[in-house]
Amino acid sequence: MNLNCASTERFRFEVRATDGLARAGAIQTAHGPLETPAFMVVGTVGTVKAMTADAVRCTGTQCVLGNTYHLMLRPGAERIAALGGLHRFMDWPGPILTDSGGFQIMSLAALRKIDADGVTFQSHIDGSRHRLTPAICMELQRQFDSTVTMVLDECTAFPATYEDAEASMEMSMRWALSSKEAFTRRPGYGLFGIVQGSTFPDLRLRSVKALKDIGFDGYAVGGLAVGEGQAAMLSTLDITVPQLPADAPRYLMGVGTPDDILGAVQRGIDMFDCVIPTRAGRTARAYTSAGIRNMRNARYADDAGPLDPECPCPACTRHSRAYLHHLFRTQEMLGPMLLTWHNITYYQSLMRGIRQAIQAGGFAAFAAGKRAAWQAGDVLP
Amino acid sequence: MNLNCASTERFRFEVRATDGLARAGAIQTAHGPLETPAFMVVGTVGTVKAMTADAVRCTGTQCVLGNTYHLMLRPGAERIAALGGLHRFMDWPGPILTDSGGFQIMSLAALRKIDADGVTFQSHIDGSRHRLTPAICMELQRQFDSTVTMVLDECTAFPATYEDAEASMEMSMRWALSSKEAFTRRPGYGLFGIVQGSTFPDLRLRSVKALKDIGFDGYAVGGLAVGEGQAAMLSTLDITVPQLPADAPRYLMGVGTPDDILGAVQRGIDMFDCVIPTRAGRTARAYTSAGIRNMRNARYADDAGPLDPECPCPACTRHSRAYLHHLFRTQEMLGPMLLTWHNITYYQSLMRGIRQAIQAGGFAAFAAGKRAAWQAGDVLP
Repeated sequence: MNLNCASTERFRFEVRATDGLARAGAIQTAHGPLETPAFMVVGTVGTVKAMTADAVRCTGTQCVLGNTYHLMLRPGAERIAALGGLHRFMDWPGPILTDSGGFQIMSLAALRKIDADGVTFQSHIDGSRHRLTPAICMELQRQFDSTVTMVLDECTAFPATYEDAEASMEMSMRWALSSKEAFTRRPGYGLFGIVQGSTFPDLRLRSVKALKDIGFDGYAVGGLAVGEGQAAMLSTLDITVPQLPADAPRYLMGVGTPDDILGAVQRGIDMFDCVIPTRAGRTARAYTSAGIRNMRNARYADDAGPLDPECPCPACTRHSRAYLHHLFRTQEMLGPMLLTWHNITYYQSLMRGIRQAIQAGGFAAFAAGKRAAWQAGDVLP
Repeated sequence: MNLNCASTERFRFEVRATDGLARAGAIQTAHGPLETPAFMVVGTVGTVKAMTADAVRCTGTQCVLGNTYHLMLRPGAERIAALGGLHRFMDWPGPILTDSGGFQIMSLAALRKIDADGVTFQSHIDGSRHRLTPAICMELQRQFDSTVTMVLDECTAFPATYEDAEASMEMSMRWALSSKEAFTRRPGYGLFGIVQGSTFPDLRLRSVKALKDIGFDGYAVGGLAVGEGQAAMLSTLDITVPQLPADAPRYLMGVGTPDDILGAVQRGIDMFDCVIPTRAGRTARAYTSAGIRNMRNARYADDAGPLDPECPCPACTRHSRAYLHHLFRTQEMLGPMLLTWHNITYYQSLMRGIRQAIQAGGFAAFAAGKRAAWQAGDVLP
């Protein structure tokens, strides 16, 4: 897994094909390549829930995401560093992206207090006090040995007034500059800025300009998928993405459904992460080539057919829908294990199809075909 | 996995080596071989908890045990038969042994009522009424397509008065005869009788004689590991096992710890099943070559070493003790998944060592060496 070329490889992005605004390419990193458009699987606390690292590799996943907030609390960044970094800790020699922790501090931590320099908060686990500043955030991610580090930002709550969104965005841009100044550059490692500005077009454009002035290895669009709805999300991308540098990867944070991904790729996004395939796998929702299936549905109790005849994963090639239904009905751990494996495999198959369609110049037809096929599911996508 | 020789293979047992009373051999079945002494992994409801079938194969496991009581309630025997049998349902083409359901009816079912012909009970899940007789029990296991079928018996509660133990044993012997009469013989499939009689030597000997008079493909010792303690269990084996036919496999039901297994092999037992390795795996107890380790123990938080340096499983070769500790501390599913994988691998490595030691004529020294090494654990075995 490219272990022996670690730290000599430059962090670089190459666009190999475009189709409208959609791009297919690859990022080269110290921990191996990441083909784009890419879906990064969420491995919150150093494990993709219900999956061994070997199983994650079998799904075609190239990059795993870790959550700085969770990891700084348990097991702690110094401990991970002493144990050889997150790659060794979780048996994932490939690329790892870690978020800044800002999102979870807002959604999980107790008694958080933001000041100009950072945020002080109490752990949701034991109430212990912690502080995150841009410099601390960079140091934590260096201790994790993260391939891609994210700047410290505030994920502006939705809805926000213009004034609140402006103040929040401006603070995030100051933190972005401080993050860049504190980031230790290493060959093959990258630092990404994060565009904020809620759903206000001029704030988004000011944020893009501020980040470009600082200069980053990649640019994320943050503050979306927080309740604004798909239409507002896509129109924000319509305004934002064309202003981002063409020669750097673009990452839409926390997105999304297969349909969201098609819409964002169409608008020029290269990278995604989302808990949907893993969380849905634990709640019996299967993403398939024929749409979403709820495996708790009694109509699968006697169904000897495969979950998705097009899928190469163990749930689909070794078992029947009836077996998967039985596992969820009896609350056996193997149900979440197999369905998580399947859902990630489905997402990665979708991304591979997207990359091939862009390279063949047929992305629009590919997307239309997928959307039509998904209508057959138990639940509309 | 011997699928193409299914149903043409005779069910037969061969003793290849003896060392004192200990025996090493193999059972040939319609679904492939089972080398003895063998440890069968419990797959209660058609899944070994926290394991894919592929992972179970990786541990060296050759035979899985299913629970008739659980399977008859969910998903139901007719449904399993319609879906092609339990082997296909759970992706386990190798040998499967199913118990009779009697033990779980006694320990789990509500409002059970025993009569001369069988037992009527209510499901612990939904209160639905069910009946089990020797003939019904044989039909259920035929529908599962079980490689080894167990006769219907009553697992006598411990402690029992002599009179209660005698009446219970005599009823089980009548049910054993009825089971034999109802069993459909097929090439490569076997039917085992079950010795009862609690801890009363003369009842055990009468039970053995009754079963030998009927004639079975194998003989199980039941009604042990129910609270009588290891000394009483082993002294019951001392009395019982030498009277069992030498040319048929002997199965000690529901046993046990690694130390129990050494003691029973020494007394001539060939087969075991127990929930210990799987259940312990879900509660952070690791069985290792240096004894039992409690992975929740804080002393593992910074331990970069492997759980068991002698073990080839993924928990030991891919991760540190610190990582396993972290997974249990954060209640991640991967903790039970990896530790179950490890514990089963440990048990199967132990069985392989036992077989090799018997073949080399060094079982006593092997057992003494294991017992000495286990003293180093966090918890005495």
